[in-house]
Amino acid sequence: MIKAYAAFKAGSELQPFEYDPGPLRASDVEIKIEHCGICHSDLSMLNNEWGMSTYPLVPGHEIVGSIAAIGENAKHLSLNQKVGLGWHSGYCMTCDTCTTGDHNLCASAEQTIVNRHGGFADKIRAHAASVIPLPNEIDAQSAGPLFCGGITVFNPLIQFNIKPTDNVAVIGIGGLGHIALQFLKAWGCHVTAFTSSPSKKNDALAFGANMVLDPNNTQELNAASGQFDFILSTVNVKLDWNALINTLRPKGRLHFVGATLAPLDLSVFPLILRQRSISGSPVGSPTNIKKMLDFAVRHKITPNIETFHFSKANAAIARLASGQAKYRIILSHD
Amino acid sequence: MIKAYAAFKAGSELQPFEYDPGPLRASDVEIKIEHCGICHSDLSMLNNEWGMSTYPLVPGHEIVGSIAAIGENAKHLSLNQKVGLGWHSGYCMTCDTCTTGDHNLCASAEQTIVNRHGGFADKIRAHAASVIPLPNEIDAQSAGPLFCGGITVFNPLIQFNIKPTDNVAVIGIGGLGHIALQFLKAWGCHVTAFTSSPSKKNDALAFGANMVLDPNNTQELNAASGQFDFILSTVNVKLDWNALINTLRPKGRLHFVGATLAPLDLSVFPLILRQRSISGSPVGSPTNIKKMLDFAVRHKITPNIETFHFSKANAAIARLASGQAKYRIILSHD
Repeated sequence: MIKAYAAFKAGSELQPFEYDPGPLRASDVEIKIEHCGICHSDLSMLNNEWGMSTYPLVPGHEIVGSIAAIGENAKHLSLNQKVGLGWHSGYCMTCDTCTTGDHNLCASAEQTIVNRHGGFADKIRAHAASVIPLPNEIDAQSAGPLFCGGITVFNPLIQFNIKPTDNVAVIGIGGLGHIALQFLKAWGCHVTAFTSSPSKKNDALAFGANMVLDPNNTQELNAASGQFDFILSTVNVKLDWNALINTLRPKGRLHFVGATLAPLDLSVFPLILRQRSISGSPVGSPTNIKKMLDFAVRHKITPNIETFHFSKANAAIARLASGQAKYRIILSHD
Repeated sequence: MIKAYAAFKAGSELQPFEYDPGPLRASDVEIKIEHCGICHSDLSMLNNEWGMSTYPLVPGHEIVGSIAAIGENAKHLSLNQKVGLGWHSGYCMTCDTCTTGDHNLCASAEQTIVNRHGGFADKIRAHAASVIPLPNEIDAQSAGPLFCGGITVFNPLIQFNIKPTDNVAVIGIGGLGHIALQFLKAWGCHVTAFTSSPSKKNDALAFGANMVLDPNNTQELNAASGQFDFILSTVNVKLDWNALINTLRPKGRLHFVGATLAPLDLSVFPLILRQRSISGSPVGSPTNIKKMLDFAVRHKITPNIETFHFSKANAAIARLASGQAKYRIILSHD
């Protein structure tokens, strides 16, 4: 039996919950969980904000642990090896996106906390292709958020060929944004942090921002007109997207990784006149997760964490919901 | 004096109008106009739909003629040479977009019918860099629309690296769309035409479409889910953009060259989950206009035209406004 923490209906507190994972599939491994980050997506799923939650719901998809059992076909991993698991716990491996290396866009990908049980538990099973070895040099306790928040902000730098000479900006300095600032600084870019929280300004500068702007300050946005090659939005609130698009250079891109629910209400003229793009992306492929881990090791990039024991999961969730966490919360078994 | 046809206020008919162009600037040439296409942008400017019209307004920015006078610095053109002129009649030549070959994105570019007089005239002046030699093999009478409508739909194929293996679609089979279908067929793509006019279906197939769909037919859109690498929208009406985005493959792009005035009201989730992009672009650079002309010659691509004498400009405009023109109207002096 796997010992977990589950919500039994939308919005309710987590309670201890056990389930039988059945026989280990040939393609899967079992991970003994040591740490698990909490992501905003866990909150959204707990509250069924996306209409796809099933209960009992075990959250948790920023998992670090060690291999406890190996299916007969999962030959590239070894017992006791340190690994991480993120939003995806399996891919079809045969569709065009999988066979071209874009497993993260696989329409049949298994999602760690959707219609299956996640990482607020002592163990978890997953398809071995989605389980990524953790480099020895990485601190295991703080590494979990790299497997969802981290790869979500790292992947666009690969996908859109961001250059060290680019002038870039990050909207929102939270769980994702504080990692994005570190990656972009190490990438060699000029980095602007957009935050409406004056209290986060010094942190943003410490994480690598060259300057800090308020996305709700019209005067600051006007002064930044036509400046950015790339803006990465990590927030899920509605902002004045047209004013932000106006801060893009010709051929600039406003890219969404934050799951903002309100429609984008974009004017088409500012896109046409300056050949600007709008886009979005989810997490990343196994290969890009490995690239990210290697980059994080070389540049000593780590999420800033607060830690709670797994038995205090409800308090940890309340802390995340308060918006006060700096900047990612980790649950640990010890 | 230059003899032209001008509207003296928004929405009024054209009347004969003369103006003195002054001394020829060193960087400019004078073109003796033979033919001029009529573009929807001429209508929008005549009616001041974009709030930037000044009167008297001489429309016309799909111009073909021959060089009648050459400024002392315009050494790459020669007297009597056949040339074309489109939406841009000059560039600053020194900004970052100009010096990297993206003259069409120059923020100070001169626009042929904005705050100056266009091609419904016997002559016109323009900065020599914006005046493009017409290949001998091209039919002069029907070539004008290539310099605005043509380059507007050709340029994105260059900018976004469209591949012959791509599955592409064109929304709107009008002045721009009927040229886009021809370019994309010659590009080697599988081409779908989106039109809500059943009467245009056979024409769309003749221009190169492999199939025709109705953008307002939910069933047809659902059946095309996840199919297209690239959709080019040439219309200025509001469609169900989210339903159209759903027909894009992972990493697909919905690209706007039609100046739709209504905001795009896009959901961000379909962009994030499949890494899709939305973008826009205006005309093209001088180099890409030359590439287009060469491509049009090699593939025998020509706009389908109806012709009017310049003295019938008001009738020609009424014909365009009726939506019945098939597919581009040309004014000619003879």
